[in-house]
Amino acid sequence: MKIALDAVGGDHGPAPCIEGALQAAKELDVEVILVGDETLLTQECARLGCRDPRLSIRHAAQVVEMHESPAAVARKKRDSSIWIATELVKGGEAQAVVSPGNTGASMVASFFVLGLTKGVERPAIATSLPTLTGEAIMLDVGANVDCTAQHLEQFALMGNEYGKHLFKKSHPRIGLLSIGEEDSKGNEVTKDAFKRLKASPLNFIGNVEGRDVYSGSADVVVCDGFIGNVALKISEGVAETIKKLLLREISGSFLGRLAYPLIAAPLMNLKRRIDYAEFGGAPLLGVNGVTIICHGRSSAKAIKNAIRRAKGMAEGRVHELIQRDIEESLSRPPGDMDA
Amino acid sequence: MKIALDAVGGDHGPAPCIEGALQAAKELDVEVILVGDETLLTQECARLGCRDPRLSIRHAAQVVEMHESPAAVARKKRDSSIWIATELVKGGEAQAVVSPGNTGASMVASFFVLGLTKGVERPAIATSLPTLTGEAIMLDVGANVDCTAQHLEQFALMGNEYGKHLFKKSHPRIGLLSIGEEDSKGNEVTKDAFKRLKASPLNFIGNVEGRDVYSGSADVVVCDGFIGNVALKISEGVAETIKKLLLREISGSFLGRLAYPLIAAPLMNLKRRIDYAEFGGAPLLGVNGVTIICHGRSSAKAIKNAIRRAKGMAEGRVHELIQRDIEESLSRPPGDMDA
Repeated sequence: MKIALDAVGGDHGPAPCIEGALQAAKELDVEVILVGDETLLTQECARLGCRDPRLSIRHAAQVVEMHESPAAVARKKRDSSIWIATELVKGGEAQAVVSPGNTGASMVASFFVLGLTKGVERPAIATSLPTLTGEAIMLDVGANVDCTAQHLEQFALMGNEYGKHLFKKSHPRIGLLSIGEEDSKGNEVTKDAFKRLKASPLNFIGNVEGRDVYSGSADVVVCDGFIGNVALKISEGVAETIKKLLLREISGSFLGRLAYPLIAAPLMNLKRRIDYAEFGGAPLLGVNGVTIICHGRSSAKAIKNAIRRAKGMAEGRVHELIQRDIEESLSRPPGDMDA
Repeated sequence: MKIALDAVGGDHGPAPCIEGALQAAKELDVEVILVGDETLLTQECARLGCRDPRLSIRHAAQVVEMHESPAAVARKKRDSSIWIATELVKGGEAQAVVSPGNTGASMVASFFVLGLTKGVERPAIATSLPTLTGEAIMLDVGANVDCTAQHLEQFALMGNEYGKHLFKKSHPRIGLLSIGEEDSKGNEVTKDAFKRLKASPLNFIGNVEGRDVYSGSADVVVCDGFIGNVALKISEGVAETIKKLLLREISGSFLGRLAYPLIAAPLMNLKRRIDYAEFGGAPLLGVNGVTIICHGRSSAKAIKNAIRRAKGMAEGRVHELIQRDIEESLSRPPGDMDA
């Protein structure tokens, strides 16, 4: 199993990527192709004392900066690390691509180089969220805004396969993010999506509200990418605010200062878990291959976790199972919806 | 100043309403008309030893239950406590209505009895949120789904007047909830709303992301009611989950159990602040009068805080200022938008 890693696109340069790749090679029995400027990567490997033969370097002359518009990537950045790393998957040299770089650039590269899965109208980014009982998937969290009900139905099908893989469940519970549990609650798009999901073969448990997302009542939460992105960032904001307010309160007393490490650690853990990237990265579902998007600030550990997820998804052939499900759903007569 | 209080619509019956009204009468120099079944309210007042002459009772034969569809209220529940309480405002007997009952029923009663403010297309519920630096307003949080850019612009105008009142600022900072700070980020509706707000006389600071809501970067955060409701409930979910996970960690050690009260209290405070109702209730903006919606589980203190807010808004004539602003905005030539 070979993983192509965009080793220069992240906020912290190549060091955490090389260290994460090294940990992955040792612990997960994978080979990692570090993609980026060869001179820079060779120097960094030497500086870090990295001589593991399971790591190799592939030169890429360009890099997509964080602030660059993804739209220009296909035109101007075909020699960038993310583009070349994705081409390694297309050409069969690697089985998955992992990138801590510009999220939009990863999407564009996967879209153009790997192509959309047959039948999929829009790809989706699927994040993992911590819940009281374990973990849930939410998708889409930012790949698409202005989704139709059919897009949401496809997200549910893709999330279902990812959920089966991640949770080892044959029928993950699929919920639709809305503003009330009743069928009648929601906006025009979610009300239409509700009907479609009810008529689908999925284990659809109905609408879930914002507060249910973290209680663990659904394994997979489906939403438009605008809503999902807002929900994710609101979550980060609440966690950050609680942490700061608590620490402010706590540092004001002797007992509090004693208890500080006790509270800071679990809060940091939780924050890290909400931050999907630290948590193994977020796959881009609906493309012909495995693409894992990590946070720009990914640590070595986050990179390793993303490589682990990439490996698991490539072994599980999740993208092929998604293609099968989408094709089946498209071959069902539309009359089924009213069944 | 007289406030009409729907004293029987809440989850906990009339007791917290009577107690909250009593506290308000004593502390805020207001009279409160308790609206609901006269026999029940008389008995409860007697049981609670409440003989304050500033409290009076107005009979209402019906009550709208929490599970009832708001749509039926105007047809079948014109003798309900929320309807009659709202009529007291319309008739000039009271200057504001406060209800811990069915939110949809409050909206319907205000819509039919008080009427929409001239020029307002949709009313909006404006909640208060705790931030690192104080407090922010978010609207709409559930009155409307499927909003247009013009609706969002009107929410901004209404939130601006409410913000001036609440924060004593002449130019509250208005942010548009979106998925990136750049002008180009968002969905079709927010991108159009961005242009409108930029062309308006408001102190528009641009897009704000989910994580900025709690950092205090905007005084007023504008969004569609679907997004706002999801955001609010996601926030509750995160706060609840953090509380439970922290308490679980903490109760596992001796030092943790020592620190427990220290941490539990600030967490509960924060949760209560996020819960808009405890925080003084949420006004329904865009109707011809003052309507404050409280949580069904409101405590006596929450009812008192809502009465305080109602009094302040009635004294500040916020609904009249909103009407003036909306009329001015409608009289501006549309060409201004491209200025």
